[in-house]
Order: sequence, then C-alpha cells, then structure tokens
Amino acid sequence: MYDYKSAFEAAVGKVREEGRYRVFADLKRVAGRFPRAVRRREDGSEQDVVVWCSNDYLGMGQHPVVLDAMKSAVDQAGAGAGGTRNISGTTRWAVDLERELAAWHRKEAALLFTSGYVANEATLATLQKILPGLIIFSDALNHASMIAGIRHGGCERHVFRHNDLEHLETLLAAAPKDAPKLVAFESVYSMDGDIADLKGTIEVARRYGAMTYLDEVHAVGLYGETGAGIAERDGVLDQIDIIECTLGKAVGVMGGYIAADAVIVDAIRSWASGFIFTTSLPPALTAGALASVRHLKANPQLRAAHQARAAELKRRLGAVGIQVMESSTSHIVPVFVGDPVHCKMVSDMLLEEFGIYVQPINYPTVPRGTERLRFTPSPDHDDAMMDALVQAMDALWTRCNVARLPAVA
Amino acid sequence: MYDYKSAFEAAVGKVREEGRYRVFADLKRVAGRFPRAVRRREDGSEQDVVVWCSNDYLGMGQHPVVLDAMKSAVDQAGAGAGGTRNISGTTRWAVDLERELAAWHRKEAALLFTSGYVANEATLATLQKILPGLIIFSDALNHASMIAGIRHGGCERHVFRHNDLEHLETLLAAAPKDAPKLVAFESVYSMDGDIADLKGTIEVARRYGAMTYLDEVHAVGLYGETGAGIAERDGVLDQIDIIECTLGKAVGVMGGYIAADAVIVDAIRSWASGFIFTTSLPPALTAGALASVRHLKANPQLRAAHQARAAELKRRLGAVGIQVMESSTSHIVPVFVGDPVHCKMVSDMLLEEFGIYVQPINYPTVPRGTERLRFTPSPDHDDAMMDALVQAMDALWTRCNVARLPAVA
Ligand SMILES: Cc1ncc(COP(=O)(O)O)c(C=O)c1O
Ligand SMILES: Cc1ncc(COP(=O)(O)O)c(C=O)c1O
Repeated sequence: MYDYKSAFEAAVGKVREEGRYRVFADLKRVAGRFPRAVRRREDGSEQDVVVWCSNDYLGMGQHPVVLDAMKSAVDQAGAGAGGTRNISGTTRWAVDLERELAAWHRKEAALLFTSGYVANEATLATLQKILPGLIIFSDALNHASMIAGIRHGGCERHVFRHNDLEHLETLLAAAPKDAPKLVAFESVYSMDGDIADLKGTIEVARRYGAMTYLDEVHAVGLYGETGAGIAERDGVLDQIDIIECTLGKAVGVMGGYIAADAVIVDAIRSWASGFIFTTSLPPALTAGALASVRHLKANPQLRAAHQARAAELKRRLGAVGIQVMESSTSHIVPVFVGDPVHCKMVSDMLLEEFGIYVQPINYPTVPRGTERLRFTPSPDHDDAMMDALVQAMDALWTRCNVARLPAVA
Repeated sequence: MYDYKSAFEAAVGKVREEGRYRVFADLKRVAGRFPRAVRRREDGSEQDVVVWCSNDYLGMGQHPVVLDAMKSAVDQAGAGAGGTRNISGTTRWAVDLERELAAWHRKEAALLFTSGYVANEATLATLQKILPGLIIFSDALNHASMIAGIRHGGCERHVFRHNDLEHLETLLAAAPKDAPKLVAFESVYSMDGDIADLKGTIEVARRYGAMTYLDEVHAVGLYGETGAGIAERDGVLDQIDIIECTLGKAVGVMGGYIAADAVIVDAIRSWASGFIFTTSLPPALTAGALASVRHLKANPQLRAAHQARAAELKRRLGAVGIQVMESSTSHIVPVFVGDPVHCKMVSDMLLEEFGIYVQPINYPTVPRGTERLRFTPSPDHDDAMMDALVQAMDALWTRCNVARLPAVA
C-alpha cells in the first residue's frame, strides 16, 4: 500500500530544505491607524508593527467611505450573497459595480469574479474554449493565475522573454497567419516594479492579428487621470481587448473582474466554469468596492501622494547605499537579497527587533536566486516611519555585512 | 485575419439556441426579512419577491450574530485583508477560524480558500503534484469545481457511476495495487438531493488503499449533532481523509476550506497556487463566518426546523400531485421539468405573476434533459409562503398541462 503520510511529509520537507517554508504572521490591521497593525506571536503576546508590504496601496481598506458602504450593505442585505450569480446571488451592488468598472475602463461591459486569481484563471482558460485553435503568447514573468488559466485550457502557448517585443514578434511571425492569437501581459509587474510598453505591445499584437489581454492588478487605482491604470495613463484603453483587475489591492477590498466588449464579456459569463459555479461576492464587498472605485476616480491627489512617497523611499534607501532594484519604475520598492535564507533572516530581524513587517519574497513567487524584500509605501507611510525603516535597514546591512552601492546623496 | 467578434457571437448564440442563456435576476436581499427580497427589473421598477432557491439554507446570512461580527471586524480592521496569506494577509480571524473549523470536523488542521470552488480546484490539482502517479476516482455527479481540479492536475482519472460502489470497486481493483489513489465524492448532491453512502464508500476505498476526499458543501451546518455534516451524522469524521466545505451556503458568508491531518494541510498550504497567489478573505468575512460556525455548532434546533420545513414542502407538493424528484433524501426539493425552455418559462411565470423566485436549473448545471426547478426551503419559509408557492405551482401545472402523479394526501 502507498505511504501517504511520507509523501506529504516529503512535500513539506522539500519546502523547508529550500528555506522557503512560510510561517504566516498573524496580524490585526487597525482601521484608521494603517499602516500600523498588531501582531500576535505564537505565544499569544502582542507587538505593534508597521506594515511595509501591504498591497492596500492607498490605504483604501480603511477609508471611511468604504467602511461605511460595507456596514450599510450588511445592515441592508445581510452577510453573504446566498448563491451563484445565476441562482439568487446577483445583488444590485454587483450590477452597479460592473457598470461602474466598465465605464472606468471605457469598455462596454465588465464581469465580476471572486478574485483576480479566478478572473485570470477562468477567463484565460475559457477563451481557449471559445476560440478553438487559440495560440497564447505569454510574458515570461506573468502571474501564477495567468499561467494557471493558460495551462488549464491546454492550448498551444509560447512564452516570450519579459517585456521583449522583438522576441514576441518573432514568435507571432512564426505562428499561422489565420489562427486566433492572444498576447497576455501585465502592466506593472509587482515583484520587479517595472512597467510594460503597452503601446509597443499593442502595435506588435495588431500587426499579427492578435488580441491583447492585460492584467492591471497592480496598476488599477494607481495610474491614469481617473486611476483606470497604465492603459489610461498611456492613452490606450480602447486598444486593449480584455483588461483584468483585482478589487483586493488599491481598491482595498476583495474580488476581481474583466472589462471588454459586451459580446466578449457575455461569452465568458456564459462559458466560464470558475464564474458560473461559485457563490458570488457578498453585498458588503461589492458595495465597499463600488464606494472605493468612485472615490479613487475622483481623487487623483491620492495617486500623486502615493508616487511621491515611493520616490522618497527609493531616495532615502539610495542615500545609505541600499540598492533598490533598478527595474522599478513604479510605486514598488524591491530590495535585492538573492538568497532565501538571508531574505527570511533579515525579514525576521526587522520584525522582531524593529517592529517592521515586510515579508521575504522567495521562490515560487520569484525565481530562485532573486529573493528580495519588497516595500510598498502608501500615502500613509509618513517620514518618521521611513526614518525608522531606513535606519533599521542600514543597521542590518552593516551587521550582516551586505554590499552597498556608493551612497547617493 | 481571424474574426474574433464572430467567434464570441457564436459562443453566445449557441447558448441562446439551447435555451440556456442566463439572465441574472437583480435582487436585494433584505436583512431581517429573508427569504423576502426586492427585485429590480430591467426598467428600474421594483417587485417584492420570496426567494426559494437560496443556498443560505438556514438564513444565517441575516443572523444578528453574523452581521454584528462583520461590522465589528470592519470597524476594527477595515475592509480587505490587504494581501495574500503570506504577504500581510493573515488576520487573527483567519487563524481563529481555521482552528474552529478543524475542531468542528475533528481534524488536526484546516485551511481557508477564497471559495469552495477554489478549495476543490486547488486541493485536487495540488494533491497530484504531491502524490506523483496519483489516480483519482471521481463520482459521475461531482461538482464542476472538483472536476476542474482533477482535470487541471492531469493525472489518470476514472469516473464511477453516481453512488455506485460496485462500479467504484471494479475500477479500484483494476488499478495498480501500490499506486496512490483518491476517491473524490460529495455527501449531499445539491441538484438531486441524494446523500452518498459514506460508510460504504470509505470501506471500499480502504480495501484498496485509497484516500477519501469528501465535499460537504451542501451538508455542513445542516447535518450531524453539531452541524459538521454527513460525516458527523454517520460517525465517520475520523475516517475521511480530506473534508472540503464552503462558508457561502449554510454558514451564510463566503469562502471555502479543507480540513485534514496537519501534514496534509501543511503540504497543500505550501504547494497550492490557488491558495498562495491570491488576496486572502477580508476580516469581515472570516469574522462573520467564525460567528456563524460557533452559532451553528450550538444550535441543533436550527437543523431540526430546516428538515421539518423541507419535509413539509415535499408533502404539500405531493398532495397536489407535483412530483418531487425521488432521489431527494435531503433538504433539497427538486421538481423535474425535463426541458430547458419549459423550465425557464415556468420560472419566469412564477416570478412575474406570483413574486416567487426560483431559478431554472439547466445545463451545464445538470445534464440536458433533466432540467428542473430546485426549491430550498429554510426555517424562515413559513406556512403562508408555502401555501402561496404550492398554489402557484398547482395553477401553472394546470395551465401548462404538466403530467401529475396521483395526489398523495
Ligand atoms: C499580477 C497579479 N494578477 C492577479 C493577482 C490575483 O489577484 P487577487 O489577489 O485578487 O486574486 C495578483 C495577486 O494576488 C497579481 O499580483
Ligand atoms: C458541491 C459543491 N462544491 C463546491 C461548490 C463551490 O463552493 P463556493 O460556492 O463556495 O465556491 C459548490 C457550489 O457553489 C457546490 O455545489
């Protein structure tokens, strides 16, 4: 008989050996005090910490308009949606939110999913059913959820080198002219902080008759005049065929969606298993997200403050010679470490000694050998917090004898 | 160049032709008045309806302990979790909820997912990575999310006829003795309302050294002394290896989970893409679910009332000769129609003329030719509502000339 227990133990053992066994920090965010939170240790004792790795990029997860909308939806309509979208689970907030999201991205329609992960997985897998013979061209650094969707459909796929349009073009040129094709990529790559060349990618895709699928998960709410993302900033909203986003990061809640032509959305809505067969988002979440999106649209100064804080952190780290990964041209501040054990150790010391919470980013989130700390300053991370962070990093870099760049004043 | 628009139109057209194009009713549940809700028509006008197809089986979605817990979590911790479980998204409610769920199912550990769909998909796909050479034996009526997970892993799989233990045994016997094996099945099948033979299935599985994976999505909260499901009712909690459930049905909120030995949970936690790479459940949902589960554990009378209402509806429909599908030995009351167009028509008439909301259950949710209406009476569906329902059905059955059974008094 097969020895199941040993197999499970081996699977966990492998993760431990590679130094990437994850222990989740038990946190309580404190509404109104973000980015501060209270950490509960294993022994039950508590510690005040400053969160430096949240994807609630603008602190919308504590904004009163969002919290009030959520509580009011709970009072009005209760806890859960009570069913799938088709079977009693379509609330008016869901309907209104889909309209609002479609308008934001200047598309005819939008479709909600339970998460950005599910939006990517379900849409990319389903497109392969709808477009038989589809060939997908996928950026090498695309998110796990896109890879899952592309794989699950089983279609022919080609991976192009990250942001390498020449390579993309070579692959497209080699594919049959009449085959349906899709170029899948992200705008802001969340672990490197770099931003794709949307115009260039669209141009290449169009030249070969390919549709474009853009993940704006780390850009929506953060870029463009109304916060509709890099596609808005770069003036190409109307040229991307399918935009995919989350409601769990800058929007501050949870959920995901796509926005596209009405017929595309209707086809996905009718065929995607991951959309059809699951309980829909609770009223509190759709109502909260709706309030958040409306607020984000109307408040470009949030985006300006966010960019300013990110630039300031990069400057301060640079001033003590700590190298922010050069790739970053966005609000994401990754600091290279290059080893999973060191990465975890530095992160542990920051937490225990300095009350600074930033998770080590190890494999499988990033390729082995590129382990890093990833800081995400929000408009609420003030100068004092930055001082504390930079001093702590400076001290640890000295203690651990990490190489530095010449300090740039 | 490929004509994308036509392809999308064709995909939607196919669904329309088959009479299974879905138009979602836009509902607002009214907390405290469930199962009543307000429907918003396309033209913006409103209609009071009674919801007869919700999976909020016990009305926990409007229970004050749940709503208070949600609002209090919003006040304390804000809207979203702010990150994946590993990257700042583990709140103490998530930790406490996992402990509570593990204890409920008398397992060492539990793991939360964003939904029951994702729990099934991620776990069943990941087991195939952890147990190389795994062969999965899957009940023919298993839910779409289980099928997705089984398929996505790409392993050898065998489908056994629904609840047919002889067939299962034949398939198991034909597989290599030393190969890792898993039998995946549900307790309550939600569209037929029948209940699997857990003891028998476990016995067969053990005889061939197979693990058991049980979906209790439509049973948790509803069966067993403390509501831990059919496995509790049948006294086999310790004999099922992995239990999978949702927080979106009887628990009344949203989310999903597995419960199992600690090492199994730890392995899934460390390897499942659909768990690792997604924003975790908001504090409001984990806090609400925690309050709900505690309430469900402590209140067996809710389960008794639920069973009584279901039996009463079956009796009343039988009394006017309307045939409840014989398969049902549970709280689910399916009425056979057998044609997608009729099914939709009857459902539309119930809604427009009688303010009774029950969705047609058509393909792909059930096999073609077995279309049905599926009623889910809760403890809050009172006698007057049942009178109204049975009279409406009676009138429509006469008007549409549907065959009846001899009325059973
Ligand atoms: C690029 C990208 N796409 C999609 C997702 C998934 O979104 P969600 O967290 O809403 O599941 C994430 C992160 O979680 C992401 O980083
Ligand atoms: C048997 C079964 N398993 C799993 C699920 C998925 O659960 P969730 O709605 O939480 O995604 C459902 C229904 O939605 C179901 O009926």
